[in-house]
Amino acid sequence: MNEKLRQAADFLLSRDCFEILTHDYPDGDTLGSGFGLCLALQQLGKRARVITTDVPKDFTFLQEGIVPQEFEAETIVSVDVADEKLLGCNREKYEGKIDLCIDHHLTNKITAPLKCVDGSAAANCEILFALFGIMNVKITREIANNLYTGVSTDTGCFRYTNTTSKTLRIAAEIMDIGCDTEYINKVMFETKSRKKIALERAVYDTIEFCFNDRCAIIAATLEIQREVGVRDNELEGLASLPRQIEGVEIGVTMREKEPNVFKVSVRTNGVVNAADMCARLGGGGHAAAAGCSVKGSFEEAKNKLKAVIKEALCTE
Amino acid sequence: MNEKLRQAADFLLSRDCFEILTHDYPDGDTLGSGFGLCLALQQLGKRARVITTDVPKDFTFLQEGIVPQEFEAETIVSVDVADEKLLGCNREKYEGKIDLCIDHHLTNKITAPLKCVDGSAAANCEILFALFGIMNVKITREIANNLYTGVSTDTGCFRYTNTTSKTLRIAAEIMDIGCDTEYINKVMFETKSRKKIALERAVYDTIEFCFNDRCAIIAATLEIQREVGVRDNELEGLASLPRQIEGVEIGVTMREKEPNVFKVSVRTNGVVNAADMCARLGGGGHAAAAGCSVKGSFEEAKNKLKAVIKEALCTE
Repeated sequence: MNEKLRQAADFLLSRDCFEILTHDYPDGDTLGSGFGLCLALQQLGKRARVITTDVPKDFTFLQEGIVPQEFEAETIVSVDVADEKLLGCNREKYEGKIDLCIDHHLTNKITAPLKCVDGSAAANCEILFALFGIMNVKITREIANNLYTGVSTDTGCFRYTNTTSKTLRIAAEIMDIGCDTEYINKVMFETKSRKKIALERAVYDTIEFCFNDRCAIIAATLEIQREVGVRDNELEGLASLPRQIEGVEIGVTMREKEPNVFKVSVRTNGVVNAADMCARLGGGGHAAAAGCSVKGSFEEAKNKLKAVIKEALCTE
Repeated sequence: MNEKLRQAADFLLSRDCFEILTHDYPDGDTLGSGFGLCLALQQLGKRARVITTDVPKDFTFLQEGIVPQEFEAETIVSVDVADEKLLGCNREKYEGKIDLCIDHHLTNKITAPLKCVDGSAAANCEILFALFGIMNVKITREIANNLYTGVSTDTGCFRYTNTTSKTLRIAAEIMDIGCDTEYINKVMFETKSRKKIALERAVYDTIEFCFNDRCAIIAATLEIQREVGVRDNELEGLASLPRQIEGVEIGVTMREKEPNVFKVSVRTNGVVNAADMCARLGGGGHAAAAGCSVKGSFEEAKNKLKAVIKEALCTE
């Protein structure tokens, strides 16, 4: 890994005019990686911008300190993007054009001349922290906020099984540098809107337990979203709910994106492999957390999922 | 603090036949401190036992490795107990008899010949970790599990404002020694019984917003507890709910212990002082998390609380 980091650092130091790509439905780790890297490159006197499909309200603070710059892109870097399919509406423009891919998904499928992938990193921002060390980037408060947001959100604030002692030590170093952990933790982990509480209650009403209660499926149908008045990006947090129920090994969350199209999140204990399960439906991810998209009516989509789950439980 | 730790270590090393007291309604930090210290003392060839009012089901694993021993007590140590009043049914027997008090509550009121109190420690188990280092205690997996449980539960798995980089580094060290973080995090932070989900939903129905929505009060009345079928020790987690609501600065949770007696938890952003507020009603705690007991009908008790909150908001 050290050699790969060195190569990635050398590449970043030798190039200019960066466009940094995040994955679609961006989360704290892809945005923290993107804006963090952008800040670092600008600090080194380079031109850089982040290309993302969205910056949800809670993440806008990550852009603090970034200077908007006009330039023609020369270098394309993807961060926390496991597959070009996940670039969303940026896919067409950037597919096949990524020069450097920095990622922590073992299942990474991107074809790029230079890849810096470390599946042992709990968050992609862990890789960036190491990279910034090699590149002699000064970790400012703004960069620290980006890295902390990535590391903390991808580990559920250090409680998911991907958390390592290295994760905790990196977080400690970032905290010592000076970082708004209080604000970030409050926004990311401690705040629920009244709407969200209403949403959770409605979603709990849809719960179905199956396979001897080893699996729980919840759904945020368009009807529920309308009733509660939430937008799609407010549904992110639902993914962790079903597996939190005592005894549940496979938690499945179905979010209806448009009529009869469901974005599905699968969370498991890691023994039942979520990535394998989702790969069968054209998705991907990690052993304990993965996603895919399923078409059909609610019942049809649910049955497709159950078939895959059944298979996973049988081959266990 | 180093001097106090040295004194406490010397005292523990020079004595034998320990009884270790936890506070009533024991949580992960007082039990982790208690059983962790008991394991450490037994490892050093001393006799020790923990005196607690309860060991809730989720915490029974903390006792692993402890050898039940018959002896007449010679040395009384309290851990994570801010006030002798908090000893519950053990108060009568042990009041005025504590030889060493190890605690992390700034408001500690215990009178003891030797006190080792560090208000900067996020969890009492942080103090024990330092103490074990001085005492040359080998941190076994069992001791590590106790310390990790204390440190993680008292910081909401490192997301509360009391978390410091020191907390994270201690957790990293404990993890490296070998500790069942996956199991502990799952049980403490990731698991909700179906009953608990039902409880939360019922409790959300009681919510009252007041003082321009800066304060939210929820209640688990005896009626709700009966309906849902929960016991009192299953109500612990409710305390964090109201302050998680967007915009709420003071979250108040009322648990009816017996008819017309409410155990109250107050959680604030730390700017409004929860300990001061609860002290006015005979309780205590930290700036951001404190508790007290209030008598009266539900409405009477709530009004007493509101009066204290109003005062706190006015003198802000």
